[in-house]
Amino acid sequence: MALSAFLATALLAPLSAFAQLTGPLTIKEQGSFFVGGDTKKVSEPAAGLVPAQSGDITVNQMYVQYQIPMRGARHVPVVFIHGCCLSSKTWETTPDGRMGWSEYFVRKDRSVYLVDQVSRARSGFDPTEFNEVRAGTLANAQMPGILEATHQFAWTVFRFGPKFGEAFPDEQFPVQAADELYKQMIPDLNSTLPQNPNPTWTQLAALGVKLHGAILIGHSESGFFPEQAALIDPAGIRGLVTIETGCSTSLTAAQLATLAKIPTLVVFGDHLADVTKPLSWMNAFESCKTFVDQLAKAGGDAEMMHLPELGIKGNSHMLMQDKNSNQIADLLIAWIDHHVETRSKRVH
Amino acid sequence: MALSAFLATALLAPLSAFAQLTGPLTIKEQGSFFVGGDTKKVSEPAAGLVPAQSGDITVNQMYVQYQIPMRGARHVPVVFIHGCCLSSKTWETTPDGRMGWSEYFVRKDRSVYLVDQVSRARSGFDPTEFNEVRAGTLANAQMPGILEATHQFAWTVFRFGPKFGEAFPDEQFPVQAADELYKQMIPDLNSTLPQNPNPTWTQLAALGVKLHGAILIGHSESGFFPEQAALIDPAGIRGLVTIETGCSTSLTAAQLATLAKIPTLVVFGDHLADVTKPLSWMNAFESCKTFVDQLAKAGGDAEMMHLPELGIKGNSHMLMQDKNSNQIADLLIAWIDHHVETRSKRVH
Repeated sequence: MALSAFLATALLAPLSAFAQLTGPLTIKEQGSFFVGGDTKKVSEPAAGLVPAQSGDITVNQMYVQYQIPMRGARHVPVVFIHGCCLSSKTWETTPDGRMGWSEYFVRKDRSVYLVDQVSRARSGFDPTEFNEVRAGTLANAQMPGILEATHQFAWTVFRFGPKFGEAFPDEQFPVQAADELYKQMIPDLNSTLPQNPNPTWTQLAALGVKLHGAILIGHSESGFFPEQAALIDPAGIRGLVTIETGCSTSLTAAQLATLAKIPTLVVFGDHLADVTKPLSWMNAFESCKTFVDQLAKAGGDAEMMHLPELGIKGNSHMLMQDKNSNQIADLLIAWIDHHVETRSKRVH
Repeated sequence: MALSAFLATALLAPLSAFAQLTGPLTIKEQGSFFVGGDTKKVSEPAAGLVPAQSGDITVNQMYVQYQIPMRGARHVPVVFIHGCCLSSKTWETTPDGRMGWSEYFVRKDRSVYLVDQVSRARSGFDPTEFNEVRAGTLANAQMPGILEATHQFAWTVFRFGPKFGEAFPDEQFPVQAADELYKQMIPDLNSTLPQNPNPTWTQLAALGVKLHGAILIGHSESGFFPEQAALIDPAGIRGLVTIETGCSTSLTAAQLATLAKIPTLVVFGDHLADVTKPLSWMNAFESCKTFVDQLAKAGGDAEMMHLPELGIKGNSHMLMQDKNSNQIADLLIAWIDHHVETRSKRVH
């Protein structure tokens, strides 16, 4: 599963090539919108600043914020989906104040769409069960649990170092700015959602169709969401990028055949074996290797990008925020250009 | 409390002046960051995708997203704060797909900062009490109520029309796109916050200082937040714009003296007397008239902008999304130029 030779070339690109990435940025168009959304009747909302009111609320909608660069039409749009206990802030200014992938990809002429997962951040969530427990009409045990990641959890599970406050010697995450990452970590209400399909998967598939084709890039909790979206409707999905997550190894032949039509890249950073509790990164890595093998056997264009195997050391789970984040972005862009866009020119 | 003559002139500006507001947009700088944030120990978070973990979380941080235009340094930055059950989406693309105030002000050479209120959207919230109720360590009655605004509530209270589904004949809100507004309406968790001060007030004051001066523009639930922030620390606050809310009429002489040093504008739309349930807009309007009178008596530069009195009819509570939203924005900009910036040139 060696990476294509051109990736090695991309690694050798001179740093001076980044110079064009500073200074003013011209945007062709920007804005925000929602995908999906269902109407739900509520009878017992809480009173407060506004009086209690029965009626309809909207749930399951997905907020999308976008920028289209001047030469955006030359490339397939990219859609970024954040992980657990995070929002689209993941892709913006890094904790240590550098340009995030959202702007970097725009400066590389890509139209960028940031989604807040359904039930997170600007997408809102369905509060009905919480208010029912409060009103005594639902048992406490029925109340959804709200996930929160502690500082201590993030430090080790995001692989900043072997124990809280101690960094790996070659650590790429800007650990001096860890407090700024902790501010991005917000409550995760995915337990309030309908399951299988998670509405985020459904809305991602619809977003791909709306954009007449997009590359979905998921991370961690959402790392396999691109594939889940494609299994719902592959029509608008032109590429699947899965970053740092566990992959399904039990897809049916029909499901693998669907995904095998879409170029797929799986990305992992460093120190996978150096953190084993509370979860095993090696298990996640192995599951994705198996998945990629299955896709390849089904005729797919699928590969693993394990950064240390390319000589890129010290990357954390939050590799889009690591000190070498632009270098990783360039690898993704090179993969997109070769595997998605060259292919598009062949196929269409 | 007549409006200055230049505002009348602004109203007569030809529509062709808007033509420059389409086409590519060049940004000097953009990004996002947090203001504030406290560390809190949690002992019983919920388990789920990530294992349960005791440790520290960050609460009370405020997310800020910004764009600085090429000529941004010529003007005082503006900070927009959304209302109840909404997020910064309020100021972006309108429900019917037009440019929102966030981009419009950038195109008018203003640096724009959008904040998600503390406990809302990308700012996150403190989930501790919910998880404690779920675990049985806190009584249900102690659980914060989660506010949600129904479609029916929004239609009348936001003054789209006299009853749900029926619009006022001269209604300016794009009611055919009301479903898109409903998607913006998300759960309001302000009941989880420490009160007096609400951390959003504190972080707004700090944001003003960080920006070396800013105009705070609040709406509805946050309409009086600019004043509350200035009462905490006026050092970085150069202008107060209060849109469609109730005003405090019981400030002390010392508090009024503090606010009187900062130019203040209070804005209301139309049909205030045409909706009386579940809340009275006339009461809110009258309270702000009293507040503005008190400020003027304390030597302040304060005025009411009641749009129908300027011949601008049919504006809703969501006037930043109304069909004539750019016209209202121009009135605010004209007020800023005359009352904040001319004054700045005199003073500094």
